[in-house]
Amino acid sequence: MKEVSKLMGYRPEIKVLDATLRDGGLVNDFRFTDEFIKDLYKANVKAGVDYMELGYRASKEMFDVDKFGKLKFCDEDYLRELFGDNNTPLKLGIMADVGRCDYQNDIINKSDSAIDLVRVATYIHQMPAALHMIEDAANKGYEVTCNIMAVSNAKESEIKIALDLLGQSPVDVIYLVDSYGSLYPEEIARLSYTYMEAADKYGKQIGIHAHNNQQLAFANTIEAVGDGVNWLDATYAEMGRGAGNCGMELLLGFLRNPKFNVYPVIQFIEKHIDNIKQDGAKWGYDLQYLMTGMLNQHPRTAIAFTKDNRHDYAEFYTEVVAQD
Amino acid sequence: MKEVSKLMGYRPEIKVLDATLRDGGLVNDFRFTDEFIKDLYKANVKAGVDYMELGYRASKEMFDVDKFGKLKFCDEDYLRELFGDNNTPLKLGIMADVGRCDYQNDIINKSDSAIDLVRVATYIHQMPAALHMIEDAANKGYEVTCNIMAVSNAKESEIKIALDLLGQSPVDVIYLVDSYGSLYPEEIARLSYTYMEAADKYGKQIGIHAHNNQQLAFANTIEAVGDGVNWLDATYAEMGRGAGNCGMELLLGFLRNPKFNVYPVIQFIEKHIDNIKQDGAKWGYDLQYLMTGMLNQHPRTAIAFTKDNRHDYAEFYTEVVAQD
Repeated sequence: MKEVSKLMGYRPEIKVLDATLRDGGLVNDFRFTDEFIKDLYKANVKAGVDYMELGYRASKEMFDVDKFGKLKFCDEDYLRELFGDNNTPLKLGIMADVGRCDYQNDIINKSDSAIDLVRVATYIHQMPAALHMIEDAANKGYEVTCNIMAVSNAKESEIKIALDLLGQSPVDVIYLVDSYGSLYPEEIARLSYTYMEAADKYGKQIGIHAHNNQQLAFANTIEAVGDGVNWLDATYAEMGRGAGNCGMELLLGFLRNPKFNVYPVIQFIEKHIDNIKQDGAKWGYDLQYLMTGMLNQHPRTAIAFTKDNRHDYAEFYTEVVAQD
Repeated sequence: MKEVSKLMGYRPEIKVLDATLRDGGLVNDFRFTDEFIKDLYKANVKAGVDYMELGYRASKEMFDVDKFGKLKFCDEDYLRELFGDNNTPLKLGIMADVGRCDYQNDIINKSDSAIDLVRVATYIHQMPAALHMIEDAANKGYEVTCNIMAVSNAKESEIKIALDLLGQSPVDVIYLVDSYGSLYPEEIARLSYTYMEAADKYGKQIGIHAHNNQQLAFANTIEAVGDGVNWLDATYAEMGRGAGNCGMELLLGFLRNPKFNVYPVIQFIEKHIDNIKQDGAKWGYDLQYLMTGMLNQHPRTAIAFTKDNRHDYAEFYTEVVAQD
């Protein structure tokens, strides 16, 4: 059982990362207004959030710039327009997916860049490419994190090898990622233990990125906090792919460090979230996400179910069970 | 850390109780159609649910029968009309609130009754009256449970005294109840430990009834399962007061006992839940419930906020903080 005192005190090492634009961008193809982005930035500064993930730096060879909002690509010029020199304690980050970005050309040196942090996202079988991206970003002067996605489908032995490889790389933070929203807190506890062992051995930090398919994104995040995980991803109003993420409003309500303040988060949600939903962005817990989460499947079928405005949940259940 | 094997195996002692009509009745004044009730009954039988809580047996002296649906009162004749002799493994229960029912007259002997289980709900300061109700129900031949409500506001020393008193009573199951949805899994673990100690000493069972103010109803319920709690309350689509309860669809998706089956739950939700929402029943996680939960307050202000169709969350936050 965790100590009572831990719920009363706080760990100054904890970093909160706002992933609203990046994970949320997946549900509206990054079509955010500049007002939305700037208000979110201000809210994060006021709320004491440590990092703000802005979007991807996707390859323009692979993705059509006309089909997405600007944060799919996060051009340096556009970021300067939005944030100037960012003279705040809030650090800015982008995600770079293995195999979907031209990092060697598109990620410039940090000294010339508007961003501070590069987040490399990889499946476990893509580790060699991920390590190359991590070295590239670290050599260019960035803080670097690595998300090993979909670990609920990986073997413990593979995870340990990946952690050893990352431990020997220049990455700063290794993320435990529940891409399918299928992990229970007990499993998070066990995985956190494995990740923390590697972190202690190699002097790295561990982060957590949770999904809400089973209404466990917040619970899994605070389980990880109790296990020693220091980097915590959250999004405003849980905005994110499929069932969404751990709510920033829930997380800041839990953390005891007086530097965090939930009120600007509430103000932002009141002003913007209903509007963006009316514009067609859909996310959040619903039965279809529970089903794919429960069965440890990629949420793509549930996302299609949502997009098609289907409500035949029972039929969908027979479909996903058949795919199992 | 809990054992991996526990997630793979199951405890046959676990009992699932469906509280949809009782806790859900609080959001629509028990105005359920007979079709809704009968379909829910059939779904519970098929799903392997152990107990179904039908509503209250409220005092007709105190409450106007014209202002509520029939399950506020659960007349024996009406229950016979609905369920006949209930020749199924599903047992039926009602809740009786301390101070809101005329139990000595209105609860008849079990041998003449359509119900199997009486659930006594009490605040910790009402224990003497609760104990009297428990003895009355046990003497009449019922299984009896006792919900100690709002324990997040009670002192550990008081809880221990209450558990000792209940231990010496004829109650079968003592419920850990998070009325305000304010408890974190770590606190559930600690409380479960205290309750289980009393259970082991006196040969009782422990149950959990959670609320979803912080999206933790399911997480807190499975935390309690891992701590040895055997009686689990859930509701279809989380229907229940305020932010609602632990979802039956989530819980049955988690439990491994092959007697449980989530499919009838999904079918019922598809057929009925959208309709009952369109009829005006409102429940489920939203910021106002997070705020009262986070501050360990009774959700009444958040329920009023919801009823008034307010969306000025930031103003509401200043109101509840002022009341803190």
